[in-house]
Amino acid sequence: MFQSFDSHANPAQGGPRLAALRARLAQAGLAGFIVPRADAHQGEYVAARDERLQWLTGFTGSAGFCIVLPDVAGVFIDGRYRVQVKAQVDLAHYTPVPWPEIKPGAWLRDHLAAGEVGFDPWLHSAEEIEKLEETLAGSGVTLRACANMVDAIWADQPAAPLGRAFAHGDDLAGETSESKRQRLAEALRRAGQRAAVITLPDSLCWLLNIRGADVPRNPVLQGFAVLHDDARVTLFTDAAKLDDAVRAHLGAHVTQRPPAAFVPALRSLPGPVRVDKGTAPLAVSRELEEAGVPLVWGDDPCRLPKACKTAGELAGMREAHLRDGAAMVEFLCWLEAKAPGTLTEIDVVTALEGFRRATNALHDISFDTICGSGPNGAIMHYRVTQETNRALHKDELLLVDSGAQYRDGTTDITRTVALGDPGDEARACYTRVLQGMIAISRVRFPKGLAGRDLDPLARFPLWVAGQDFDHGTGHGVGAFLSVHEGPQRLSRVSEVPLQAGMILSNEPGYYREGAFGIRLENLIAVEEAPALGDNRAQFAFETLTFVPFDRRLILTDLLSPDERAWLDAYHASVWDKLAARVGDAARDWLGAACQPL
Amino acid sequence: MFQSFDSHANPAQGGPRLAALRARLAQAGLAGFIVPRADAHQGEYVAARDERLQWLTGFTGSAGFCIVLPDVAGVFIDGRYRVQVKAQVDLAHYTPVPWPEIKPGAWLRDHLAAGEVGFDPWLHSAEEIEKLEETLAGSGVTLRACANMVDAIWADQPAAPLGRAFAHGDDLAGETSESKRQRLAEALRRAGQRAAVITLPDSLCWLLNIRGADVPRNPVLQGFAVLHDDARVTLFTDAAKLDDAVRAHLGAHVTQRPPAAFVPALRSLPGPVRVDKGTAPLAVSRELEEAGVPLVWGDDPCRLPKACKTAGELAGMREAHLRDGAAMVEFLCWLEAKAPGTLTEIDVVTALEGFRRATNALHDISFDTICGSGPNGAIMHYRVTQETNRALHKDELLLVDSGAQYRDGTTDITRTVALGDPGDEARACYTRVLQGMIAISRVRFPKGLAGRDLDPLARFPLWVAGQDFDHGTGHGVGAFLSVHEGPQRLSRVSEVPLQAGMILSNEPGYYREGAFGIRLENLIAVEEAPALGDNRAQFAFETLTFVPFDRRLILTDLLSPDERAWLDAYHASVWDKLAARVGDAARDWLGAACQPL
Repeated sequence: MFQSFDSHANPAQGGPRLAALRARLAQAGLAGFIVPRADAHQGEYVAARDERLQWLTGFTGSAGFCIVLPDVAGVFIDGRYRVQVKAQVDLAHYTPVPWPEIKPGAWLRDHLAAGEVGFDPWLHSAEEIEKLEETLAGSGVTLRACANMVDAIWADQPAAPLGRAFAHGDDLAGETSESKRQRLAEALRRAGQRAAVITLPDSLCWLLNIRGADVPRNPVLQGFAVLHDDARVTLFTDAAKLDDAVRAHLGAHVTQRPPAAFVPALRSLPGPVRVDKGTAPLAVSRELEEAGVPLVWGDDPCRLPKACKTAGELAGMREAHLRDGAAMVEFLCWLEAKAPGTLTEIDVVTALEGFRRATNALHDISFDTICGSGPNGAIMHYRVTQETNRALHKDELLLVDSGAQYRDGTTDITRTVALGDPGDEARACYTRVLQGMIAISRVRFPKGLAGRDLDPLARFPLWVAGQDFDHGTGHGVGAFLSVHEGPQRLSRVSEVPLQAGMILSNEPGYYREGAFGIRLENLIAVEEAPALGDNRAQFAFETLTFVPFDRRLILTDLLSPDERAWLDAYHASVWDKLAARVGDAARDWLGAACQPL
Repeated sequence: MFQSFDSHANPAQGGPRLAALRARLAQAGLAGFIVPRADAHQGEYVAARDERLQWLTGFTGSAGFCIVLPDVAGVFIDGRYRVQVKAQVDLAHYTPVPWPEIKPGAWLRDHLAAGEVGFDPWLHSAEEIEKLEETLAGSGVTLRACANMVDAIWADQPAAPLGRAFAHGDDLAGETSESKRQRLAEALRRAGQRAAVITLPDSLCWLLNIRGADVPRNPVLQGFAVLHDDARVTLFTDAAKLDDAVRAHLGAHVTQRPPAAFVPALRSLPGPVRVDKGTAPLAVSRELEEAGVPLVWGDDPCRLPKACKTAGELAGMREAHLRDGAAMVEFLCWLEAKAPGTLTEIDVVTALEGFRRATNALHDISFDTICGSGPNGAIMHYRVTQETNRALHKDELLLVDSGAQYRDGTTDITRTVALGDPGDEARACYTRVLQGMIAISRVRFPKGLAGRDLDPLARFPLWVAGQDFDHGTGHGVGAFLSVHEGPQRLSRVSEVPLQAGMILSNEPGYYREGAFGIRLENLIAVEEAPALGDNRAQFAFETLTFVPFDRRLILTDLLSPDERAWLDAYHASVWDKLAARVGDAARDWLGAACQPL
């Protein structure tokens, strides 16, 4: 079982550890210290040794940070974690701060008259520190880069992970690493840059066509890399992670060096060197600057090419989604056969992972399954634990958001199903969410538009009912990489033009606090739109996910003829693609689920 | 009759006038000269003396410019005028240049090795010249502000207009000029600015609650003004335009000065002075700079407040739209009774203006009526002339885009009607355009969104059919002012957040070159959304225009239940609001037109 249901929070440790940290700060002459959730690689999942925020405060959310001052320790958390944080930290010692409503700079000005606040320059990007320093300008508060003060007091801090890397085949990648390195190096040469520093593990793995096992859920190797303008790569990671097979796969133009060699190598690079201001640790640019190496701010060169999937990656993603869809169908069939009251949320999560394991292809789950019944469905990033586990009741909704890592692709799917009869108000909300999801599925749009331009289409049916959802409509998705990847998004703030091959989630929702939650999610890929009408230069979305929607929750009379036709055609495709992939019972269930409305 | 059907173009004069201009340029040591369509006030309509582009080249479009060089004279025109320009200029002397595809800077670099190109600094904004200079950097071409070279050779150039200004009542304006001046002056004081220069006639008229008669279609007074930080205004315009009544209305805190006093007054202003970089003539900022008066770039202070209509303006706009709607209903009833083949486009325009005149409230039309039958409907800004006039044929579409200036409000409405049976393909296109218009009419949306965020909703039904339209979905509209006003728009490029009271057009379309054009347009006003659903902070649109849509062109089966319900409710409102305002025949026609689908 990949997923665990333990609660890692331990509020009781928060007080003593905070006292120890403050003593250490006083020794160092610091008035405060910033403890982020992030590691040096800005990923969503971090290794055990990087769980500093959780170790100190008890808070286990996937985003947030703590600022420790002499008299107050603020735990900055976003809207998803307002409730959770109160249960996980000792409120006698830690003060939850709503973020981003309250900005760290403003909070610091309010709570500290003067003094130096320390931060670990490996855990913050240059952009992040620059913004914070701007908001502190003119106050008595300054920032000081320093050694990590939490590490200094964390006696039994785990060692850095040593997960074994492995080759990601050229057929799955759709392009050799050599080809990727050559085309990126050519772009560096054209820009007059001698090298680019790569700090994101998914960029590094994409560039080298390898995967790793350093953090849960994301099959990445942690390390740093330098791409030189002659297409050579120096990879800074522990030698123990690379066996002979992967070394052979990397080839002669990729040189492994130990992590400790990274800084000296940076300092001796010929410039100009490209560094990503938003994702590289500040330490990278500071070291270059101190050594007098010319630096140019620029995007991580892997980020955009990685987002535009190759034919090989798309083929793998399609196959992974059919495999995963069959497991989901088995799961939904199983779920429907169970009587309400006989299952808990943990039972559901466990069963679902079991159906995915039965594919014999499951490498990991792509994130901890969100399984919220009744009111728990309204907690957008709910992760069930033994403490919160809840029995499924009749006439409720059940929201299940889950995904898998297969060697050929990453999946992410949400279905909301009825347990009994949840009533027409829930059906009306479900139908509106479905209409938004269908709009994104059906849309064709002019080339050049960004996710921001499409996001309103997913919200329109909710908006006109005075409803909405407080998250983006979709995020980028990696191919056997991170289930959340940029730069593309379907969101009000996303200005990145969509390009062919980009994969996104399409997941509108609706949440009624204390009552129920609805989210419906398919993955989609940007494609050249098939010829139609005036043959304008348009993109369209290919749907990758094939799993039925719960017909019992659809108010058919609310749908437009086009929406109904889309859904019937989708269900017909689900049947065509999955009928031969599931067992007899599931096939019967699928046949009924895929009937036209 | 306000509208004329003459063609003002006279291609034969283009050659001799161009030769005279070139001789004048040579005397002045200039390699070229820029002749814009704009006057010093950046309006869409200009006075006869400012029709320099037309006088020189013959081109009559509402946007464009000519750059005259020794060997070539380029007439820069946008997509709307590609066909028209060829008929209006002597192609032996003038070269049409597709703009903005070809930028003037790039064109100048291509056509002139070195030399000075003159321009009249009163006819170009600082922003425009700055951009042009940026694109010329490093070339041998430079710009030189100089006296207007066209005026120098235009022997019988008309005098500046002397239209009589008149008071715009406080009840119609909804706020006294004194109140407007006080609140804008307070904003100046808060910003530490001593004065703001106002160069847009609609801003000036809004601020002073007056109107004028200097240009057709827009009831504005031309002039410049300075708003001082103590709420006094100095108005630079010819004394002959202001009679005693309007002087009394302006009051003691508004001082009239002759136009010639404007520059000396600018030069003696205490600074900092706010100037709008995008709309004020470059001459304004140059004079301030030369005189050493500190200058701050900032928006015309009237622009945003003017866009957010008062309760009085909204009440006037509603009444104006009902009056105008009744005239439109009389017109549509009359049109339907005529046999195809008995009418021309000019007959239609003449009749429509007649129905508006019959209200006894018509001050002017708000723009020249666009009346395109059959293939002429696909010419987005078609203005019928004696030369292009075309008989209406059976089984065609007729597109009529028109509007009125009444003392209480400005209207702008487009309806497309069937003459006989235009076929199901035209009906399908019409229905998609209607669906887009209904989506904007129905939408409720979170506060903070801009026109860009809503524009895709109007296009979605066309996009999914591989179709689109190449203009914005809507423009801002003034209250008894310009029918086109900013800053708000419904457009892919509009980032201005919508605010309560803003009035916009909602006018998606579809154009098939050589075949037909469809456009459907209502005016809408941003309002606080009525309570519904989760009571989120939303805006909605109040529809101002009430005139039926042509039921014969709607494929009812394509509509969603919500779209059909909206249209039936709209038609019921049209009947309720207009039945008592029209004659017997029109009432019978209206009753049938407003039946539920």
